[in-house]
Amino acid sequence: MKWIIPKRSNVFREAALERQVKLTKPAGALGLLEDVAVWLADVQQTRRPQAGPASAIVFAADHPVSHLGVSAYPREVTPMMIINLAMGGAAASVLARLNGIPLHVVDVGAERYPIPETGPGIYWNRVDVGGTAGDLVNSDAMDSTALAGALEAGADTIDSIDVNTRVVIFGEMGIGNTTPASAISSRLLGLSAKDTVGPGTGLTGNALNDKRAKVQKALDRTNGVNSAMEVLRCLGGREIAAIVGAMGRAAEQGIAILVDGFIVSSAALVAVRHDPRIRAHMWFGHRSAEPGHAGILESLGAKPLVDAGLRLGEGSGALATFPLVEAAVSLHNQMATFEEAAVPERDQ
Amino acid sequence: MKWIIPKRSNVFREAALERQVKLTKPAGALGLLEDVAVWLADVQQTRRPQAGPASAIVFAADHPVSHLGVSAYPREVTPMMIINLAMGGAAASVLARLNGIPLHVVDVGAERYPIPETGPGIYWNRVDVGGTAGDLVNSDAMDSTALAGALEAGADTIDSIDVNTRVVIFGEMGIGNTTPASAISSRLLGLSAKDTVGPGTGLTGNALNDKRAKVQKALDRTNGVNSAMEVLRCLGGREIAAIVGAMGRAAEQGIAILVDGFIVSSAALVAVRHDPRIRAHMWFGHRSAEPGHAGILESLGAKPLVDAGLRLGEGSGALATFPLVEAAVSLHNQMATFEEAAVPERDQ
Repeated sequence: MKWIIPKRSNVFREAALERQVKLTKPAGALGLLEDVAVWLADVQQTRRPQAGPASAIVFAADHPVSHLGVSAYPREVTPMMIINLAMGGAAASVLARLNGIPLHVVDVGAERYPIPETGPGIYWNRVDVGGTAGDLVNSDAMDSTALAGALEAGADTIDSIDVNTRVVIFGEMGIGNTTPASAISSRLLGLSAKDTVGPGTGLTGNALNDKRAKVQKALDRTNGVNSAMEVLRCLGGREIAAIVGAMGRAAEQGIAILVDGFIVSSAALVAVRHDPRIRAHMWFGHRSAEPGHAGILESLGAKPLVDAGLRLGEGSGALATFPLVEAAVSLHNQMATFEEAAVPERDQ
Repeated sequence: MKWIIPKRSNVFREAALERQVKLTKPAGALGLLEDVAVWLADVQQTRRPQAGPASAIVFAADHPVSHLGVSAYPREVTPMMIINLAMGGAAASVLARLNGIPLHVVDVGAERYPIPETGPGIYWNRVDVGGTAGDLVNSDAMDSTALAGALEAGADTIDSIDVNTRVVIFGEMGIGNTTPASAISSRLLGLSAKDTVGPGTGLTGNALNDKRAKVQKALDRTNGVNSAMEVLRCLGGREIAAIVGAMGRAAEQGIAILVDGFIVSSAALVAVRHDPRIRAHMWFGHRSAEPGHAGILESLGAKPLVDAGLRLGEGSGALATFPLVEAAVSLHNQMATFEEAAVPERDQ
């Protein structure tokens, strides 16, 4: 899969940087909010960057690895949480509603459940991506059919959302999915399981050690697999692959990506390793409490806006952070310049 | 000045903690957003904490110390920025508008300027606090008349805002006012000027060293002054004193305080040293890039939500952070419980 990412002109980035120094504040005093405005102007290739319309997409799938006891919660939580997301009671649903962002819940491989009633502003969809899924420890997480189907389901979802979308937020739901995120991160960053495996939904003690051992076993099994898409196929999951596919299509469409925590960041890592040009389309919303997140952030040179100990997933961290992107854009577009306000500039 | 802060029942804090563990997420997975919801339930003494209505109040004043060359900007910026705030072009004005929060701009001692036209949702007021103001390095920042007048102006402002206000954000404008904030912090925390003096609006090199020396001289001059209100009088400024007075009245009224960066935090430090009960009414929005902020945050055991290199003042950091408080409240009140969503709980 090759992504057709348009070449960007430097004009808009430079115009944004120029405008920032003219606004009525000491240069740099808005910190990362200045960088976010410049980033959006560059991605959107405009002098008037916009935070909206924004869309949120939560991809969900089961993980055969959850049969191996890598999560504090039973496997049945995945379909029940999909229903909760669709009906409006999950964290991501609440935050999407608060921010006036439509929430798309896309099932790319969860066990069957009744088609849920959806709350206002929420859209549910189910895609059979085909192929077979393995437990990643003893067998590949996806065959090539499942990988291709999941990537395509992700890209197709971008094609189905509001055509004016300027910023997209991805989330995920899938009991067991910190395990593939750790395995992917370790493999692509050259780290041991010890560096990337954490409690997820709340493992401690022996159960946590056991999770570490399983990820290490998966890493040993796939020793020598290095291409990003092969790592994704062997160690990932269908919702993670769907996010990768959606990220690629978003970049093709010039849509900015506000990245969530550990699991979505593992998809971002795959996407960047697959095509480094996509990095410029991403800002990272927050620093997750899940310990594996730090390595990805460092590797990608990310400067998250929020560090509040979040570790829920579903895109909730990026959704909670989204108003800071709105703030960055409003400040950039609406603050008076020194000239407009007749404020004297610095004299030293 | 004694504050009449009502004793709070533990019932609401405990009810909030109980509700948090019933919501459809792993316990603790929303990090500080859980703590913020519990904090608000406690301050507001309710089972349904609310982030709004919120009000923002920017107090502004000149500082005689600005004649001694402690700022990168000329003294005339203070009145011009008051006008900019009132007309809607300053960072705080933009963020208040974005968040739908009324912005009160209260001049408690700036040089004269024409009464500004105010933008929508913005209210300007001027209070002559009386007394005399010194440069704090060679003479006291306020005489007792000015201190009492500024404290009262702050309290009176709380009495004038929307009577239903549930959360208040304070900001400040006053060229030179990182100097009193550093002096107050050093005196109350027992730190040298080296630990609390930073670039402010952008000092470097010799000018920064000179600012440090002036703060140290002020500290030497006031050696032995330890009571919080006397420290405020000798080393503060009228807008900082107004914030202290307003914080006290807010606590008396059961209004939660979302604290901004370094300068507002120096007021918070004075308020807490004056009456430690007020600490429970405060959450700290962000960690400022101004180096002196760290000592205050540590001393008060604060856990800021955002660390984005902001150092603008005006309350802009707290205003940018406010949506995270809204998120915390919405999640607390609106997420489904495990029981409501029929989601199985953890099995390990």
